[in-house]
Amino acid sequence: MPLDLSHLFSTEVKARSPSKLKTIASHRATPDIAFLGGGLPLPSYFAWDTLSATTRKPPFEGGLPASVTASNELSFTVTKESDELDIPLSKALQYGTPKGPTQLLDYLVEHTNKIHSIPYNDWEIITTVGSTQSWDSCIRVFCDPGDTILVEKYAFTSALETAVPQGVTTLTMEMDDSGIIPEMLEEKLAKIKSSGAKLPKLIYTVPTGQNPTGSSMPFERRKAVYDIASKYDIIIIEDEPYYFLQLDQYVKASERTKPTHVSSEEFIKSLVPSFLNLDVDGRVVRLDSFSKVLAPGSRLGWMTGQTAILERFLRVHETSIQTPSGFSSAMVYGTLARWGQDGFLDWLQALRHEYTYKRDSAIDSALKHVPSVAEVHIPIAGMFFTISFDTTKHPEFKTKYNSDPLALEKDIYETTIQKNALLVPGSWFEVLEEGEKPSTNIFFRATYAATNVEVLDKGLERFGAAIKQVWGL
Amino acid sequence: MPLDLSHLFSTEVKARSPSKLKTIASHRATPDIAFLGGGLPLPSYFAWDTLSATTRKPPFEGGLPASVTASNELSFTVTKESDELDIPLSKALQYGTPKGPTQLLDYLVEHTNKIHSIPYNDWEIITTVGSTQSWDSCIRVFCDPGDTILVEKYAFTSALETAVPQGVTTLTMEMDDSGIIPEMLEEKLAKIKSSGAKLPKLIYTVPTGQNPTGSSMPFERRKAVYDIASKYDIIIIEDEPYYFLQLDQYVKASERTKPTHVSSEEFIKSLVPSFLNLDVDGRVVRLDSFSKVLAPGSRLGWMTGQTAILERFLRVHETSIQTPSGFSSAMVYGTLARWGQDGFLDWLQALRHEYTYKRDSAIDSALKHVPSVAEVHIPIAGMFFTISFDTTKHPEFKTKYNSDPLALEKDIYETTIQKNALLVPGSWFEVLEEGEKPSTNIFFRATYAATNVEVLDKGLERFGAAIKQVWGL
Repeated sequence: MPLDLSHLFSTEVKARSPSKLKTIASHRATPDIAFLGGGLPLPSYFAWDTLSATTRKPPFEGGLPASVTASNELSFTVTKESDELDIPLSKALQYGTPKGPTQLLDYLVEHTNKIHSIPYNDWEIITTVGSTQSWDSCIRVFCDPGDTILVEKYAFTSALETAVPQGVTTLTMEMDDSGIIPEMLEEKLAKIKSSGAKLPKLIYTVPTGQNPTGSSMPFERRKAVYDIASKYDIIIIEDEPYYFLQLDQYVKASERTKPTHVSSEEFIKSLVPSFLNLDVDGRVVRLDSFSKVLAPGSRLGWMTGQTAILERFLRVHETSIQTPSGFSSAMVYGTLARWGQDGFLDWLQALRHEYTYKRDSAIDSALKHVPSVAEVHIPIAGMFFTISFDTTKHPEFKTKYNSDPLALEKDIYETTIQKNALLVPGSWFEVLEEGEKPSTNIFFRATYAATNVEVLDKGLERFGAAIKQVWGL
Repeated sequence: MPLDLSHLFSTEVKARSPSKLKTIASHRATPDIAFLGGGLPLPSYFAWDTLSATTRKPPFEGGLPASVTASNELSFTVTKESDELDIPLSKALQYGTPKGPTQLLDYLVEHTNKIHSIPYNDWEIITTVGSTQSWDSCIRVFCDPGDTILVEKYAFTSALETAVPQGVTTLTMEMDDSGIIPEMLEEKLAKIKSSGAKLPKLIYTVPTGQNPTGSSMPFERRKAVYDIASKYDIIIIEDEPYYFLQLDQYVKASERTKPTHVSSEEFIKSLVPSFLNLDVDGRVVRLDSFSKVLAPGSRLGWMTGQTAILERFLRVHETSIQTPSGFSSAMVYGTLARWGQDGFLDWLQALRHEYTYKRDSAIDSALKHVPSVAEVHIPIAGMFFTISFDTTKHPEFKTKYNSDPLALEKDIYETTIQKNALLVPGSWFEVLEEGEKPSTNIFFRATYAATNVEVLDKGLERFGAAIKQVWGL
């Protein structure tokens, strides 16, 4: 049994109750009832009769992007009537429940059982319109203005912009290339507790392929952070858009071999266990999304957590987003149902190989072009890597830059743009606590997701040239 | 020029600023730039190569539901590459801007110019994931806990459940079959003003085919309410899901003629002007949705209002919903682009004819089956109509029901369910101000949208039988 954590709910969601109007739905199943209750248009008025998609057939051993050929093309058509591999359009294009379409939820539950062994039974999955919205709902469900939350020292700016205007204060968790440093987190919380101040409500973390740092937490760190959250009664929001972009180790180009395609079981075994997997208390809410693995435009994600907590999310969702697009649900489910669980895992494995190749190319180029005043951090997951600098070692740090790391960072950023490349300054992601000064260790975030390897190489060559110019090398 | 109404913004949105990270987007257009900035997956990694839909070809003079035949079938396929009638999948399935896809926005701007003559220039349209979410955003943009809003005396419960847990207090606007009664609104506001209390921030209204009452405001009432809002500096949220379900007048079955299909110009002329059309101040935010006219599952709507106000909505949306589903946008736009502006208006006219037929059938049945202790209210728009009772006229009101109108309402509700029909009690929608007692005039809401005319007749026959039983007739 998960713990009762309702004392952590916000004033807003404590005030939310299921609509009385929803109670009529139970009567809809009565045989031959003349149901004049709900304002649902007849499916015969829907503007569309069929929807179709073309995708590719598993296995995806050849990797991605696979060209579509006559032999690997997979086409399907969804009609208004039911079909075992489809959400019929009479349902998909009708008003839905905030939980999401049953068929898709069943698929995701099976998927979750394969990937995460959740140590309690009373958990649930609900769909969302993507993890940005899921995170917005997390703030609404748990936080009142004046509450504090813990975020990683460098965090995706949109995640902060979601939370902070809602009146929460951010405290930071120090991190390195392996993510949150548990000892420093424990120390901070012990200090807050002994001061008598209110403890943070949430830990927000992107444990795998973190944006912007590219860091990934090994299992031991997750376990340590979980135990701390449990000790201090804090909810963990595990935001994992890049979870399935866990890559093969980086090895030198000369030692690189063609990736081997493994079984689903071996693929699953190769994934670092999630916070969900450790969640004996039921204090983890995991956010997943199809954005990074199928397409961002699906605006389709899901949350996993204990039923009593997700019920509160449903109350927020039924009066805001309602349910994801039926076009998205129909096309995503139609694809996944035809691929099967193994086909989806196979697709994810093909993505791993592709992103491993892109990461390898990026690191090859970075090591080649970037002078040794910088350190290249090699990620083992996700879409991002960083190149960092100790600004105090720049010969003119005190003079030209007036000992201001951000002045030097700005010079590098602008010089890189002059050379026609763009990497994002790390300070844009840096979360400062009250009175804290920016770090003298600066970094730039680059992605290997959005370009081909030729552009990637060109970009890092130009960045390298900018560094040389700024350092006078 | 619209008025500067920024003093009406909430604390939350005053604290929202555009993300620094978004500033990099401007560099993306630089020729040959090696852009390693944003974590967007390559379109070649998207799981879908094409999406297709089957719909019907205008004109829709034959009415709805039209069977799809070889001659009226319209099929189209969207690929990753651009096409003038499509949002290419390389864009539709990628991350988008919170405003929505340009092609769809352009279409909606043209549509808006045809339907509403907005009296100022600096207005804008942004997409949403449907009007429930739009309304949720309205509360976030304008209201702080402790603020008050004005809602119709009977209001869609979900709309209240969206607002109230966010800490706002609802005051009510008295209404009749022609919607809000301006004189009573003015009186209430004058009283608040003279008491020195804080004035309401918003008027929330469904002016056309209101849910649950089925009432529609004629132009004069809209004008009067607008002037009051202007006088007391209140924002009007005009929520118009049923705007295009403005029906022909109800006439007796014997006098009914086949509906005539008119030109787009005549159709537009037949629509009651919107609040947007009166909006000299820029204080109206109009909510539109495709849910009632194309399909609810599209989860695609839009808002129209002055640019400076909608900019605040964009800041809320980019950190929550982001943008509607690309599947929805691609399919909806692909359809509308092929239909053209006139084709869409033609579809809306066909819907009018269909709902007029359904409304007529419902009223015929109600007048036939429901005894004269009840009053049948004939709507001129939307999906709902009501049947009302003066509970004080029930012979056993004081004795059996202890002078409690809700006890009599409950008896009717349950007796109707026993007879295997369901209509929704009006008290479920009644908004009571502090200390106010439920009205002794009760009503039941029925819809003619969700069933065919045979079920509709059966339902009203059973409701009539329940009334007779409860009244001892």
